[in-house]
Amino acid sequence: MSDERPAALYPVLYEDFVRRALQEDLGRAGDLTSDATLPPGTRAEAMLVARAAGRIAGLPVALAAFTLLDPSIAIEVFAEDGEDVEPNSVLAVVRGAARSILSAERTALNILGQLSGVATATRVLSDLASAHGARIVCTRKTTPGMRTLEKYAVRCGGGHNHRFGLDDAILIKDNHRALAGGLRPAVLRARQVAGHLVKIEVEVENLEQLQEAIDLAVDVVLLDNMPLDLLRESVVLAKGKCLTEASGGINPKSAAAIAATGVDMMSVGYLTHSAPALDVALDVVEG
Amino acid sequence: MSDERPAALYPVLYEDFVRRALQEDLGRAGDLTSDATLPPGTRAEAMLVARAAGRIAGLPVALAAFTLLDPSIAIEVFAEDGEDVEPNSVLAVVRGAARSILSAERTALNILGQLSGVATATRVLSDLASAHGARIVCTRKTTPGMRTLEKYAVRCGGGHNHRFGLDDAILIKDNHRALAGGLRPAVLRARQVAGHLVKIEVEVENLEQLQEAIDLAVDVVLLDNMPLDLLRESVVLAKGKCLTEASGGINPKSAAAIAATGVDMMSVGYLTHSAPALDVALDVVEG
Amino acid sequence: MSDERPAALYPVLYEDFVRRALQEDLGRAGDLTSDATLPPGTRAEAMLVARAAGRIAGLPVALAAFTLLDPSIAIEVFAEDGEDVEPNSVLAVVRGAARSILSAERTALNILGQLSGVATATRVLSDLASAHGARIVCTRKTTPGMRTLEKYAVRCGGGHNHRFGLDDAILIKDNHRALAGGLRPAVLRARQVAGHLVKIEVEVENLEQLQEAIDLAVDVVLLDNMPLDLLRESVVLAKGKCLTEASGGINPKSAAAIAATGVDMMSVGYLTHSAPALDVALDVVEG
Amino acid sequence: MSDERPAALYPVLYEDFVRRALQEDLGRAGDLTSDATLPPGTRAEAMLVARAAGRIAGLPVALAAFTLLDPSIAIEVFAEDGEDVEPNSVLAVVRGAARSILSAERTALNILGQLSGVATATRVLSDLASAHGARIVCTRKTTPGMRTLEKYAVRCGGGHNHRFGLDDAILIKDNHRALAGGLRPAVLRARQVAGHLVKIEVEVENLEQLQEAIDLAVDVVLLDNMPLDLLRESVVLAKGKCLTEASGGINPKSAAAIAATGVDMMSVGYLTHSAPALDVALDVVEG
Amino acid sequence: MSDERPAALYPVLYEDFVRRALQEDLGRAGDLTSDATLPPGTRAEAMLVARAAGRIAGLPVALAAFTLLDPSIAIEVFAEDGEDVEPNSVLAVVRGAARSILSAERTALNILGQLSGVATATRVLSDLASAHGARIVCTRKTTPGMRTLEKYAVRCGGGHNHRFGLDDAILIKDNHRALAGGLRPAVLRARQVAGHLVKIEVEVENLEQLQEAIDLAVDVVLLDNMPLDLLRESVVLAKGKCLTEASGGINPKSAAAIAATGVDMMSVGYLTHSAPALDVALDVVEG
Amino acid sequence: MSDERPAALYPVLYEDFVRRALQEDLGRAGDLTSDATLPPGTRAEAMLVARAAGRIAGLPVALAAFTLLDPSIAIEVFAEDGEDVEPNSVLAVVRGAARSILSAERTALNILGQLSGVATATRVLSDLASAHGARIVCTRKTTPGMRTLEKYAVRCGGGHNHRFGLDDAILIKDNHRALAGGLRPAVLRARQVAGHLVKIEVEVENLEQLQEAIDLAVDVVLLDNMPLDLLRESVVLAKGKCLTEASGGINPKSAAAIAATGVDMMSVGYLTHSAPALDVALDVVEG
Repeated sequence: MSDERPAALYPVLYEDFVRRALQEDLGRAGDLTSDATLPPGTRAEAMLVARAAGRIAGLPVALAAFTLLDPSIAIEVFAEDGEDVEPNSVLAVVRGAARSILSAERTALNILGQLSGVATATRVLSDLASAHGARIVCTRKTTPGMRTLEKYAVRCGGGHNHRFGLDDAILIKDNHRALAGGLRPAVLRARQVAGHLVKIEVEVENLEQLQEAIDLAVDVVLLDNMPLDLLRESVVLAKGKCLTEASGGINPKSAAAIAATGVDMMSVGYLTHSAPALDVALDVVEG
Repeated sequence: MSDERPAALYPVLYEDFVRRALQEDLGRAGDLTSDATLPPGTRAEAMLVARAAGRIAGLPVALAAFTLLDPSIAIEVFAEDGEDVEPNSVLAVVRGAARSILSAERTALNILGQLSGVATATRVLSDLASAHGARIVCTRKTTPGMRTLEKYAVRCGGGHNHRFGLDDAILIKDNHRALAGGLRPAVLRARQVAGHLVKIEVEVENLEQLQEAIDLAVDVVLLDNMPLDLLRESVVLAKGKCLTEASGGINPKSAAAIAATGVDMMSVGYLTHSAPALDVALDVVEG
Repeated sequence: MSDERPAALYPVLYEDFVRRALQEDLGRAGDLTSDATLPPGTRAEAMLVARAAGRIAGLPVALAAFTLLDPSIAIEVFAEDGEDVEPNSVLAVVRGAARSILSAERTALNILGQLSGVATATRVLSDLASAHGARIVCTRKTTPGMRTLEKYAVRCGGGHNHRFGLDDAILIKDNHRALAGGLRPAVLRARQVAGHLVKIEVEVENLEQLQEAIDLAVDVVLLDNMPLDLLRESVVLAKGKCLTEASGGINPKSAAAIAATGVDMMSVGYLTHSAPALDVALDVVEG
Repeated sequence: MSDERPAALYPVLYEDFVRRALQEDLGRAGDLTSDATLPPGTRAEAMLVARAAGRIAGLPVALAAFTLLDPSIAIEVFAEDGEDVEPNSVLAVVRGAARSILSAERTALNILGQLSGVATATRVLSDLASAHGARIVCTRKTTPGMRTLEKYAVRCGGGHNHRFGLDDAILIKDNHRALAGGLRPAVLRARQVAGHLVKIEVEVENLEQLQEAIDLAVDVVLLDNMPLDLLRESVVLAKGKCLTEASGGINPKSAAAIAATGVDMMSVGYLTHSAPALDVALDVVEG
Repeated sequence: MSDERPAALYPVLYEDFVRRALQEDLGRAGDLTSDATLPPGTRAEAMLVARAAGRIAGLPVALAAFTLLDPSIAIEVFAEDGEDVEPNSVLAVVRGAARSILSAERTALNILGQLSGVATATRVLSDLASAHGARIVCTRKTTPGMRTLEKYAVRCGGGHNHRFGLDDAILIKDNHRALAGGLRPAVLRARQVAGHLVKIEVEVENLEQLQEAIDLAVDVVLLDNMPLDLLRESVVLAKGKCLTEASGGINPKSAAAIAATGVDMMSVGYLTHSAPALDVALDVVEG
Repeated sequence: MSDERPAALYPVLYEDFVRRALQEDLGRAGDLTSDATLPPGTRAEAMLVARAAGRIAGLPVALAAFTLLDPSIAIEVFAEDGEDVEPNSVLAVVRGAARSILSAERTALNILGQLSGVATATRVLSDLASAHGARIVCTRKTTPGMRTLEKYAVRCGGGHNHRFGLDDAILIKDNHRALAGGLRPAVLRARQVAGHLVKIEVEVENLEQLQEAIDLAVDVVLLDNMPLDLLRESVVLAKGKCLTEASGGINPKSAAAIAATGVDMMSVGYLTHSAPALDVALDVVEG
């Protein structure tokens, strides 16, 4: 997918995260086992392997665990973020001090497994949705401390990003509507206050609310937990007036049918809060 | 479970984590939507609710999202960590400035959902294992940056903790064995170097390796990916000589049978890397 | 301006900044002068005063310097962010240990002076622009480390915020156009990649480029350094198709004329990189 | 000014500052525009240019924005801190990945513009003052978080540094005098407590206070907001007994006359709190 | 010593240090022993006791370990920094959750023991020196990360502070002299570059160097490792021209004789790098 | 001691510590003296020398002070951690910019002196103890912020490590015993709660308590402040049942006799809280 590479992910955005992960695993005393059992000077070569099929994400982040621990480790890379791999694919080979390699192993695997798990789950849904011209988008239901990386993994999986946080778009939900005294005052006030590059999305639960949102010329409507026929009606009503985003109950079984309603986007929380990790491992090459 | 309360979790161990999570969601501009749509001075009352049944973990951590954002928010707590709840249970009620409550909502839910997901998955397995006198233990396959909290959630779920990191026990795996020139030199060297409070565990794959480990008087053996009959034989062989830990392929379907082999512990990676989040939500109480 | 209050500015977004500022001033040895000259136990009352007329911004941030240094300091507040004050207005009164008050003084004044300077400069231009229905917007030309606060100060001054960073909207400038091989491929690719809540703005220098941008249905055009008549023509051309933002050479002398061209927004870098600080001081009340 | 190079400015004193500035601009999602519009692999060459005449300061700090973001960027430097440049001078050329260069651009420019603005303003006053043998010195009225860098920029501009913080010298102001029960007890106590390398400066407002300070053998007197004739009388009185520092109302118009009174130093707050940024830009070299 | 209280030590200068110390001791899992053995809800009362005679320093810093861990702990204080105590003196009583008290115990004791050790060693020398009118001053030979606190402890012990770092005074040593091409160019250049509040001290080894330094009108001379008679001659030579500081070989046995030579100051590295900790303990009060 | 190398000490575990130490010494203005007196471009060569005999620890950490300040400094290393050196041994030679070398000097020396002081004190006791087959172990009485490094230094000195913190083993002291209602409930509860890799040690003061601990099958007993004959009796009683650790009053004079009682371990607090620093210096090589 060289032509579809997800966005640049500068180390300045993840190195602190990787360092903290290494420190969390090394603790105060370091790797007791490797230090105690491996003779000093022992060198090793090890393969980073995907045990299961999946979509890779976060490989440079994971490999940074090795080089941030020991800059003398040499790495050969055989896969790239956004790539689909078969079971037992070798993603990279690391060579250097055996102690360093084994001490960084778990940190690297935890990062790669979690992010590739997000990408793999995204890819499954994305394939189903894109067949109908719909986009899979993520939510803010991410692992605390990993939003940048998990949103990146969603892109690696072929999905698109929803808001990165509370501050890059306006999304008026039912609570805001209720507390603001209705949708109209909420939207009018938002438009007055917000910057000119801030889009406004509104959560709606029925056609009446949808019509009100359309009348207020919002940019996007979030169709919350609607049955398929209501989704279809909503899409017809909104066509050409605002983008439509389906939300709620989207999974591999339901995705195709929901996409077929014609919605522009389908937002899925479980990609980032419940997707299982991809099974990855580090195999030391026998001498 | 007041008498079985998991260990004290001091704020000094998690407040930085919660602050970073809030900052990650607020970004540079804060909560555009709440700021724009809610009239200043609007107050709200909201219920923190478990939508599904599960075991609660991390409730004080999640609630800290509200009070670290706005110390004037008042909280009434109706559940405690380690407690099992029914669907739609009210876990806490928060009262205060509507903007503050909505701005902290997602951070609180992400923390509570993830940790309660870990506890809930642990509890399921723990119930199956404890019927046979076995313990469920976690691994180091945790979310980077959340090891302290996820290991705590495992305890809330009725599980026990394996190593917290590379530095609090020695676990000699196949790679160490191979690179050290055999198990004997590895264990002897470890015993010479390690502190007197450090236990030694050894990964074995067959009865021959198990016997070698027993002869070396190690504290624990990790029986890696063994079929049930081999597990049973191993338990017999190790009885009274060292603790036994089964590893690999442990899930709700296989757990009872594995526990019935008589192993002392069963270690499970998916508790912390792949357990789905518990579905939790914040419901604003209508005026 | 109670009804027009700028957005909530949670302490979690600025306390680290204030603490660092205090530490920067206290250094390693603390306030040598106050410690040496003031008898222990000396108490003081002091007024935070605006020496010149201006628009206040950052008062809670500045006052946090006192309470973060010494929580026992009591504060009475007489002004609020976004308020216009006359020369010698008392903004707040602080009471407590004399050493603490004098040790926090400079940090508090530096913060308040700088942010109120931004707000005051913004207000002058904003008054001129709003007479013609135009908005003043800021840029990313902010003081490193103070973007959240300076953008907030712009809002206090009656201005609106442009992008907070590189990641909350797309702004295609001449360099991007040139390196991407033209505006069309740049916009098409941006639309394909960007999330559905991301707006696209394009910098144009002449009517030809403007027409191209309009044809591509971008959300906003940045009219870069155009003379007044060209601005007027651009506004006519873009009317109803996209928002228009004038940029370059906007100052108190030129602002009214530029606003009169009918542009929607006028972006001004000097608000945040060159506005003089507002003159504020701390006057100890004589016993 | 190779022979007058300002002090070494080690990266350990500014790299955290630059990293925070980059993170502040990149946010959670990075540079949406460059990532979306520039084909991967696009390379660029760009010139860092001073649009206006001025005194350069902070060039290595600004350039660190490029290399901390992407170590593979190559930089050729054509100017050095403390150097005066003409409009359109090329200060440096950067070559490398186009995305990286454009993503670091604003951070680099904000740093360089602000620090060179301080140096340029300092130089103007310094030239006026030095003609009469007086030194321009800065104050503690600096941008929070930038004291080390702004004080360095003052030196680049030919000025000298006053205190860096509350802890490297004693400066007894009117508030200390009042709260300590007079100047004599304040100075005596300061001398008893302070370390032997700590100088004592005293703020005075009239000849009587000046004489009292001289009698107490202080190192420096700060002549606060005195008219020219009073300054002259003060200089005569203090000659050979202590250094004299004029303060208040010093600007390009008044500086020469104040310097001509014979004071040793003139302290100026606006150098660091109100000097306009130098206009600097990054010009991509067309292929 | 209520009238001689050392300088204010604001929490903003030491709370991060205490938090890091707590985190260092609690690790990832917290206090296994207290959590496991103490029934939840157990309360305790404990006395912070000095087992040996000494001078107290850092008591508020040590007590912060309790309150930063658990704000509900109540503390009654019976001693203050700078006070001399007899063996078995009760310095404070803490009351609250038994787990919290025992979990913070070691951190509090480590801080108090180390700082009081510095103060106690300082006091011994200071008593000897002050009998001859000399001051004991510390050096930069401090524990990394504790300079602010150890310098404060020196003041608590009756000593005075030398430089806090490389940046608050100029101290020209033999290496500088050699590399600068002699003392004269070094001092002349320093005077030209340094701020007006920066004193200049010069290290000299013989009378010739001393005379050269006096001729250059430096503020202080450091008499390095001189025998007693040479110290006496140096004091005579420097009298009325600059302050004199003896350095090298100063300990409780030699201090009185060195002080009797008439030097103004005696600097002692071992106060901060080798003084033994004061023996302090926490005694739980039996019910 | 190439074959006995202490454990790997990864930079990720100490670089932040060294950076903070450098920043602590450089302050806000850097090295005034070197900057002012040394002509730009001056280069120097300097030897890191042990003035006294001792055991080296922390050399790579100390040398990192030079390279973290200025990566262009070249270093040649002549000693390694864990090595015994004679007085005036050259440990390393550093070459590069004179300013950089002198600016990092004190930070490097403070680190090396303190850690080698710990190692040297450990080695003395360790030689005495090992003659009788006993191990010297450290305690948690370490310098706040330096536990990882000081524990490492103990290993360099030939000692072994006790607990690194409250969370890597259980040590039931008299306070726990009293508050838990006796040793039996404390141990039983600890065994139920603790992970399977956590050992249990119990502090005992007499033979009765010892027998109780043995009956509970604890792993280690800490024999607190026992006279020699009681130690001997305890060793006999515990032989083959649990490890024995003597504690209290262990110093170079008493160590051999205590070791001769047959205890397995002797724990010594003063190694890390009161050992004097090793005298190390940096000698600039004259041209």
